[in-house]
Amino acid sequence: MTEATAHTMSKNRYAEADIAAVYRAIYERRDMRHFLPDPVAPELLSRLLMAAHHAPSVGFMQPWRFIRISCPDLRQSIHALVDQERICTAKALNEREEAFMRLKVEGILECPIILVAALCAQREQHIFGRRTLPEMDLASLACAIQNMWLAARAEGLGLGWVSMFEPEALKQLLNMPSDSQPIAILCLGHVADFYDKPMLEQEQWAARQDINAYLFENTWESPCR
Amino acid sequence: MTEATAHTMSKNRYAEADIAAVYRAIYERRDMRHFLPDPVAPELLSRLLMAAHHAPSVGFMQPWRFIRISCPDLRQSIHALVDQERICTAKALNEREEAFMRLKVEGILECPIILVAALCAQREQHIFGRRTLPEMDLASLACAIQNMWLAARAEGLGLGWVSMFEPEALKQLLNMPSDSQPIAILCLGHVADFYDKPMLEQEQWAARQDINAYLFENTWESPCR
Repeated sequence: MTEATAHTMSKNRYAEADIAAVYRAIYERRDMRHFLPDPVAPELLSRLLMAAHHAPSVGFMQPWRFIRISCPDLRQSIHALVDQERICTAKALNEREEAFMRLKVEGILECPIILVAALCAQREQHIFGRRTLPEMDLASLACAIQNMWLAARAEGLGLGWVSMFEPEALKQLLNMPSDSQPIAILCLGHVADFYDKPMLEQEQWAARQDINAYLFENTWESPCR
Repeated sequence: MTEATAHTMSKNRYAEADIAAVYRAIYERRDMRHFLPDPVAPELLSRLLMAAHHAPSVGFMQPWRFIRISCPDLRQSIHALVDQERICTAKALNEREEAFMRLKVEGILECPIILVAALCAQREQHIFGRRTLPEMDLASLACAIQNMWLAARAEGLGLGWVSMFEPEALKQLLNMPSDSQPIAILCLGHVADFYDKPMLEQEQWAARQDINAYLFENTWESPCR
């Protein structure tokens, strides 16, 4: 390595404390289902939405849309929709039905802010990076939500992603066009505490796997040296 | 707000410098296509993969798999696949064909590390959060890649997400099972400079939209107050 290269490499690297802060947010982010009722400052919400808006997007298409739910009746209807799907999911889980029904899977009625995150309409005009993989728009929206999630964690706010709903029913509730798609009901708010571990790990629903089992080299399921 | 609540809210919030570091990574992350050939330290790559592995996943299913491409012939074949799709994309773009062909859309032959990010096989057994939205596994993988992207930016490393390929052809190259799915060819490495703006914005391919046009309240396309 030349001296010039070494200089370039170190100039692009953040200070150690800043690198540690980024990893801290990554490791301490949780999918929250318990919230405090205290309001979220509007400028804080704006910062989180702006963080989402600076996610990568395929062909720079920025497919994300956020619908804030401020109407209490609408919140109730959304909760009812999620609860209906919760029962259907429980039944589909067969022998795990009871264990599933004991889990808290959403905090829709408690959190101060509900946002529905959706993919925009008329996405078929965006071909760049999507000709063979049209689902890349969803990947972009997920990156936007992850940005918001990490920024929220740093700001001390909890966020929960609920995907337990019938998308067509939610579209109807929000007057969404047929070619748009709701992807997430996001619950946002202050929390008493962040879970020490992912809630599903804490509740022994599933365990974190050894990453080495997920890393391959050149061909599927070959161990990575 | 009670004093106890105010205390809780401030204890969960990171120090201002740490919050700023998280936002800095979010705002300075770029989809890179230009790389330096210098090797990436193995422990740095491990940290990035571990950051990915700590992404949220629907029902804690951890659907991500990463295939490192160390074989030079395989890298060439992957490049050929991407280049083939680049031509197909250009043709599909009609009047924008020429402008598209002038863009650099990947750095596969230059970057020191290539990872193919994929969804695992046998995902139909995971019903939690996916009964009505099976595509949530892709959302989880995208969150994992975004974690890696932000951590890489903080560490001074560039990452580029290439989605221009025929997935069935890539599956064949990597001996992937039919029910797995390659989602991204990730190019990773040191860079001389990060782009000031997203490359597609710099090249005037597309402009960043006003976020206010993307925020609605209670119903689709209603302005959010």
